[in-house]
Amino acid sequence: MTRSVEILDTTLRDGAQAEGISFTVEDKLSIINILSSLGIHIIECGNPYSNPKDRELFERLEDVHCSSSLAAFGSTRKKYSSAEEDKAVNALLTSGCRAVCVVGKTSLSQVRTVLETDGEENLRMIYDSLSLLKERGHKVYFDCEHFFDGYKEDRIYSMKALECAVSAGADCLVLCDTNGSSLTNEVYDIVKHVVTTFPETMIGVHFHNDLGLSTANTLTSVSAGARHIQGTLLGFGERCGNASLAEIIPTLTYKMGYDTIPVSSIQNLCDYAKAVARVCETEINRSSPYIGEAAFSHKGGMHIDGVLKNTSAFEHISPEMVGNRRNLLLSEVSGKGAVLEKAGKFISFDGKNDEKAAKVLYAIKEKELSGYQYENAEASFELLVKNLFGMVKEYFTVELYRVMGEKTVGAEKNIASAMVKVNVGGNTEFAAAEGNGPVNALDGALRRGLEVFFPSLKGLRLTDYRVRVVNPDGATASTVRVNLTSQSDKIGSFTTLGVSTDVIDASFNALYDSYIYYLSKVEE
Amino acid sequence: MTRSVEILDTTLRDGAQAEGISFTVEDKLSIINILSSLGIHIIECGNPYSNPKDRELFERLEDVHCSSSLAAFGSTRKKYSSAEEDKAVNALLTSGCRAVCVVGKTSLSQVRTVLETDGEENLRMIYDSLSLLKERGHKVYFDCEHFFDGYKEDRIYSMKALECAVSAGADCLVLCDTNGSSLTNEVYDIVKHVVTTFPETMIGVHFHNDLGLSTANTLTSVSAGARHIQGTLLGFGERCGNASLAEIIPTLTYKMGYDTIPVSSIQNLCDYAKAVARVCETEINRSSPYIGEAAFSHKGGMHIDGVLKNTSAFEHISPEMVGNRRNLLLSEVSGKGAVLEKAGKFISFDGKNDEKAAKVLYAIKEKELSGYQYENAEASFELLVKNLFGMVKEYFTVELYRVMGEKTVGAEKNIASAMVKVNVGGNTEFAAAEGNGPVNALDGALRRGLEVFFPSLKGLRLTDYRVRVVNPDGATASTVRVNLTSQSDKIGSFTTLGVSTDVIDASFNALYDSYIYYLSKVEE
Repeated sequence: MTRSVEILDTTLRDGAQAEGISFTVEDKLSIINILSSLGIHIIECGNPYSNPKDRELFERLEDVHCSSSLAAFGSTRKKYSSAEEDKAVNALLTSGCRAVCVVGKTSLSQVRTVLETDGEENLRMIYDSLSLLKERGHKVYFDCEHFFDGYKEDRIYSMKALECAVSAGADCLVLCDTNGSSLTNEVYDIVKHVVTTFPETMIGVHFHNDLGLSTANTLTSVSAGARHIQGTLLGFGERCGNASLAEIIPTLTYKMGYDTIPVSSIQNLCDYAKAVARVCETEINRSSPYIGEAAFSHKGGMHIDGVLKNTSAFEHISPEMVGNRRNLLLSEVSGKGAVLEKAGKFISFDGKNDEKAAKVLYAIKEKELSGYQYENAEASFELLVKNLFGMVKEYFTVELYRVMGEKTVGAEKNIASAMVKVNVGGNTEFAAAEGNGPVNALDGALRRGLEVFFPSLKGLRLTDYRVRVVNPDGATASTVRVNLTSQSDKIGSFTTLGVSTDVIDASFNALYDSYIYYLSKVEE
Repeated sequence: MTRSVEILDTTLRDGAQAEGISFTVEDKLSIINILSSLGIHIIECGNPYSNPKDRELFERLEDVHCSSSLAAFGSTRKKYSSAEEDKAVNALLTSGCRAVCVVGKTSLSQVRTVLETDGEENLRMIYDSLSLLKERGHKVYFDCEHFFDGYKEDRIYSMKALECAVSAGADCLVLCDTNGSSLTNEVYDIVKHVVTTFPETMIGVHFHNDLGLSTANTLTSVSAGARHIQGTLLGFGERCGNASLAEIIPTLTYKMGYDTIPVSSIQNLCDYAKAVARVCETEINRSSPYIGEAAFSHKGGMHIDGVLKNTSAFEHISPEMVGNRRNLLLSEVSGKGAVLEKAGKFISFDGKNDEKAAKVLYAIKEKELSGYQYENAEASFELLVKNLFGMVKEYFTVELYRVMGEKTVGAEKNIASAMVKVNVGGNTEFAAAEGNGPVNALDGALRRGLEVFFPSLKGLRLTDYRVRVVNPDGATASTVRVNLTSQSDKIGSFTTLGVSTDVIDASFNALYDSYIYYLSKVEE
């Protein structure tokens, strides 16, 4: 049996059903582009029948040239009608995609309660729709809705539905765990039975994560002989999500020895995942296997010592194999080992018992108590450490900032403005700016004042702004933590943070750190 | 073989190693209280040797009376020394906890590279430490670090280490997948072998989620005969987290028929999970199996129709069985079915083709385009719908608001203040307030002005404030979405939202909705 597994990504179809996800046509085209560079074999693009946005997408697909096969999704014909005249089937015939994923019912109880028809008519719906699509030259993936549940309730009917699809010419039978209720051991047995019964047909699987088993169920299906898997790159989808391809592909490839997508792509998996997340305006869960930012983070003192001695102790693969990186976290429990490792990049310690290490640890602890978290703000961490030992030049001071926001009745928009007084070596500059909001105005005013003295600041761009409420229970008096990411051609990307009960003050602190950090790097 | 599975929660020990988690002693006591009411059998409280905070905790445990067994965590003695004189072992002897979890090495390669000693000395370390603890009357759980890796590398040595622990009197052998690298089928075989070899000893398991398999591996271990499982209620822990007990317990109980914690507790699992998340200042992933807010959310039009016809179509259990609830999401893809269902609570539709339904759908779509998301802000949704049909009274207008934030050199704190002019039926009131930040000041000023006319507003408290940046790439000019949760004795808890590029304006909109919503409920 072949060791190759075909991968279908359904981010654009099943993934679009996730809470909080809403794609424009441009978004969909960007995602097709990313998934195709990653080497995904089939990209399910959407449903040309149900959704006007998707119709526009399919028209524009004609101009897309990519190495992935692009698939349209649809369903079998309506009951008691002809496939030739069925709107959903016709939308597939005219979608322009050779590959089509056709969902149909394979659970008798679902046929009766949801379709409200009998088992025989459902078999005719499958046969008519699939054979027409095959006749017209399509490659047909038959998505067997509720297959696992159906099999457990009435195995004979569910297998008969598969047989009917095979006789209609289906190229692949995709067994779906539509409500995500299947247990891993039963999945293995059922897939094995299907694979044995239809040795000439490719068997695929499609799992949902309602029991937290979508990854295990996908992997065990491949062990049982499935050679086509469906999921979404980041695992999102309706309810608890779809099987996560980013979680499955490295295990299939590195741990189980199957051919999936090129290893060179897997080695950049994190970048691809981030690119998709950016388009979806979603964040990758930090603790996601392989691609999460915390996937190779180490915090406990004992663990960090272990990793430094023997990486396999707490890392099952090298982070580089999926384009991730090791991260030794700084926190009160991380112990001196991590501090020496991290802070040692900026100051030299005289062995483990150097007082300077204790001083750094103490300062971090104090800051953590007031809501700071340096784990993701390495630039502010560097400034904190260097400041402790007088190693940061005071390029400027801000003598005053004043931010105003106001709105009057009848006004279309509110007005945000800021003024600042900056002092550089005794020379002061008063500057003001308007903005889209108070923080944007403050940033504008500060830059206007500072660029007089430091023209190099023009090269610094803010690329990301995040606000997190640290203690939501405080309601509008909560403490907030602001993380700012800045970018420049000269020193790349870096992140700073600020904390305060006042979102403007927290933003000010993060802005201040970003200017100082940048100046400390480029003015030397 | 018994059908009871013993559950150990290690949120306070392994969970504390998660990125972003930092517990105070009070936090730990609160979590013990929550887990114990939930019915967790054993709560691992921490390491009395390594961590000063934990030492304080163990002193205070004497006053804790709960039905769970409280356990201390530690390790076997250091190499080439005596257990009686070992500080770590002594910390366990004097922790005050009868139950102790003792970690030791069971992988020969780890013994050699990390402990830097030989296999025989490691066996003596295990034997000496465990037998001393048994002698002094402790119940001993032996955490077999790197057991699965060790077994695969050198099965004979790993099994010998278990034998040594059993001969020293260990009550339970906990097989640990320390770096989270084990595949489900091999886990089954290995656990089965251990269970068969030591039929008189309880076998436990401890999994990490680095491959996304911690749930599957725990469940398969129970199938193979393990009767003690370890994890953290919410699944957090170092790197990709520990096995999630909230994900595992319902499946073990409802799907596999094991006795775990009382079913009455499982029926309130969501509340317990939220209580722990609150103490940890973390959020439960919305798509988490069973306990996530999206776990029973339905968005696609076809799916919603399916659920309304037959709940088992897209729900593997009833949400009430874990204290969760069904959620029909409103969005451009949800179709008229969901709109009729949701909006139908406030206005009556005349069948599916009523123009009012189209009007509501159109309004939602427009709002979504500018960054609104009504999925979690039902109060603002109700106002949106009712406003479309002139069903909300304009209790007041805000003619002006002005918010100021400023900081001057030398000042300890920044100053935030706000003034507002409200108009109620032609009568205006000018009011001002200071605050912890601009939003807090604005809330204060608005309330001061409005309470003159509506004293009932005194009964309204803000309990949660969240800010989310909708398009982080816009940096400080990003669009932000504010969600405000308010609470009152009269109408309970409700959530409103506001969207703007200006965090103050977004907050103003959410505040405005919360006052109007409250007034519309209590003034009638």
